[in-house]
Amino acid sequence: MPKINAGRLLSELRRFAQFGAYRTGVHRPTYSKEDMDSRRWLAQQYEIVGLQAHIDGVGNVFGTPHSARRSLLIGSHAESENHAGWLDGALGVMYGLEIARTFAETPDCAGLPIAPVAWADEEGHYISLLGSRSFIGDIGEAQIDRALNVHHGLPLRDALCTAGLAGVPRSLVEPERYVGYLEAHIEQGDALEASGKRIGVVTSIVGIWQYSIAFQGIQNHAGTTRMAIRKDAGIAAATLAMAIAERFPEVAGPCSVWTTGRISLEPGAPSIIPGKAEMLFQFRDSEMQVLERLDAVLREVVKETATRTGCRAEIVRTEAGKPWYMDATFQGAIESAAERHTTAYMRMPSGASHDAQVVARKLRAAMLFVPSIGGISHHWTENTDDADLVLGCQVLADAAETILRGESR
Amino acid sequence: MPKINAGRLLSELRRFAQFGAYRTGVHRPTYSKEDMDSRRWLAQQYEIVGLQAHIDGVGNVFGTPHSARRSLLIGSHAESENHAGWLDGALGVMYGLEIARTFAETPDCAGLPIAPVAWADEEGHYISLLGSRSFIGDIGEAQIDRALNVHHGLPLRDALCTAGLAGVPRSLVEPERYVGYLEAHIEQGDALEASGKRIGVVTSIVGIWQYSIAFQGIQNHAGTTRMAIRKDAGIAAATLAMAIAERFPEVAGPCSVWTTGRISLEPGAPSIIPGKAEMLFQFRDSEMQVLERLDAVLREVVKETATRTGCRAEIVRTEAGKPWYMDATFQGAIESAAERHTTAYMRMPSGASHDAQVVARKLRAAMLFVPSIGGISHHWTENTDDADLVLGCQVLADAAETILRGESR
Repeated sequence: MPKINAGRLLSELRRFAQFGAYRTGVHRPTYSKEDMDSRRWLAQQYEIVGLQAHIDGVGNVFGTPHSARRSLLIGSHAESENHAGWLDGALGVMYGLEIARTFAETPDCAGLPIAPVAWADEEGHYISLLGSRSFIGDIGEAQIDRALNVHHGLPLRDALCTAGLAGVPRSLVEPERYVGYLEAHIEQGDALEASGKRIGVVTSIVGIWQYSIAFQGIQNHAGTTRMAIRKDAGIAAATLAMAIAERFPEVAGPCSVWTTGRISLEPGAPSIIPGKAEMLFQFRDSEMQVLERLDAVLREVVKETATRTGCRAEIVRTEAGKPWYMDATFQGAIESAAERHTTAYMRMPSGASHDAQVVARKLRAAMLFVPSIGGISHHWTENTDDADLVLGCQVLADAAETILRGESR
Repeated sequence: MPKINAGRLLSELRRFAQFGAYRTGVHRPTYSKEDMDSRRWLAQQYEIVGLQAHIDGVGNVFGTPHSARRSLLIGSHAESENHAGWLDGALGVMYGLEIARTFAETPDCAGLPIAPVAWADEEGHYISLLGSRSFIGDIGEAQIDRALNVHHGLPLRDALCTAGLAGVPRSLVEPERYVGYLEAHIEQGDALEASGKRIGVVTSIVGIWQYSIAFQGIQNHAGTTRMAIRKDAGIAAATLAMAIAERFPEVAGPCSVWTTGRISLEPGAPSIIPGKAEMLFQFRDSEMQVLERLDAVLREVVKETATRTGCRAEIVRTEAGKPWYMDATFQGAIESAAERHTTAYMRMPSGASHDAQVVARKLRAAMLFVPSIGGISHHWTENTDDADLVLGCQVLADAAETILRGESR
């Protein structure tokens, strides 16, 4: 049985958080000096464990076992959102390293090949899930040529060059070399905390459907235009937001979420009736039928809102990601491993995107969640109880053993 | 009886629209070359009519009769909004010039002193109603020092210098020198057109009460935060807009208008629940009690919205202009003059701000409206029927005669 080193895990997690330390969190944007330093440090650690380390052309860090047997990829992404938490991504990366170390030190596990990995730019400073998508062959060179940093606009090509990655080949998955992929992550929500659970066994990763909705009214003088004749695009936007709030619960699944992230009114002046309103709207669910139902209701209420407000509506779906189910056998392995240590575990969908949903298109994959204190993430106050950090790693190590032994049988 | 020269009025209006011509409208921002050219041209015309012309330190153009008797100011503002219509402001300015010419040419009116005027920056490129407010002593030098162009940010002082107005004294009203002030303006709404009327006798100018309303919720991940625990500031903003739409009609006056001109959500990203929402809201009415009633209901619904959405609300009133009543005798003079030419006139409040509401604080003042085709203004397609342009000027000339003869009796 692999027994992880709790003290080492916690101190190495804190060591990793030194790269781009920001208050109690980190600021480690993809391809920044801090990000690349952390990736090179990881590669060194992989080498020390006896793995063959390499950083590929988009910054993915691989630790490849010197073994003829199929290995189990374990990891997550190494970079952070801007001025964000110390665990988002880093947790799964450091679990991969700790589990590789533990297996190497544990005589009866030494033959079970763990391949730790740290993906690049899951957070989408340039392209969301860039590293894992590149690994499964879902990113072309032209897309890399076009991509700009979403915050400061610098080209991805320039960032890769500065990072020393220009001309370095991108690694492509060879599915026959892997048993599968395990990823641990902080939950980022409060479902575990609210249920008093310490481990989440992820059943699926939600599909995200995203929309740009515009209302065209008539821009006019806010003093001289009678209420009766107005076609106020801002009122149309507010009407739609409220109609969604009223109608979605009737057709949503128990874990559906929906969000209007942006409303902008043109021209946005105090004395002018808005002639145009634009909204960014998205919903998420782990069931395709639910996503389709929400889409239909959304289109219905947009149409009703247009009729009711006299504004012309346009709705464009900009993203329609499919939900991805985690591998059932892997889920079972994680659940059994959790059961050995605690009764405080539960199955749950992931409301956020993760590299696992990408890798799952080529390999068997599963995820484990640990609780986020207060459900907070993408903020420097993000945190998880030390005991949960340790428990999560031990459960993932046990699950990895089960999966690799099942494989060898 | 003064008989205006219809052909001259229309051709001079078109001549004036050459200054900064833009499509079928004008682009004549305050203190731009086009604006200053138009003011210098006006001063020349005033001189030709036999008036003493001068441009004061904020660009107001005065034509002062060589007469010991009290004169009647007639005018409006000369500049335009950006890429806007040819009549907004210019109409009242050119009526002043035409009426001064007509009176000078009409033997039995020659002794009735008309003082045409063209105010500066009513449109607020720097400070709303700047010229008329300067004239009544409502603008200090420090305020001019601080003011920046709202579109491009250049200091007012620099603009005045470029316009050749640095060091030129600002004219201050000496109330005993004037009988009062008349201003004609396009309606900018569609009330006249909708009622089949050609002349509006303005009873009052509305008070504008303006608010900045902020909701503070909890910014969080749009995928992992359950609907049940969200405190979405964007939903609070939409809820408030709809609550206003529902509650205001119960307490509003027949001419009340209200507008949410801006909604902005922070951080405004598709996958983040907005933690903060800011709204610009205003309402207008010509009755103080109605304004106070709307204020009370607004504060009530803001509080209810905060309770309902779990967001913290803050409401700040940034403007609370009093409605201004037009002089009753002057209103009567305009109405009687209208009656001589048409039955298609009506009394009405002005929903927009005008220099007349400023001048009214020091002098007796009244306004006349002509219809805006389709209610359109602040747009280059703004227009008024030629016949209405001519009728409006004749009615104002007749009213001016009545007022000045009443004065001399």
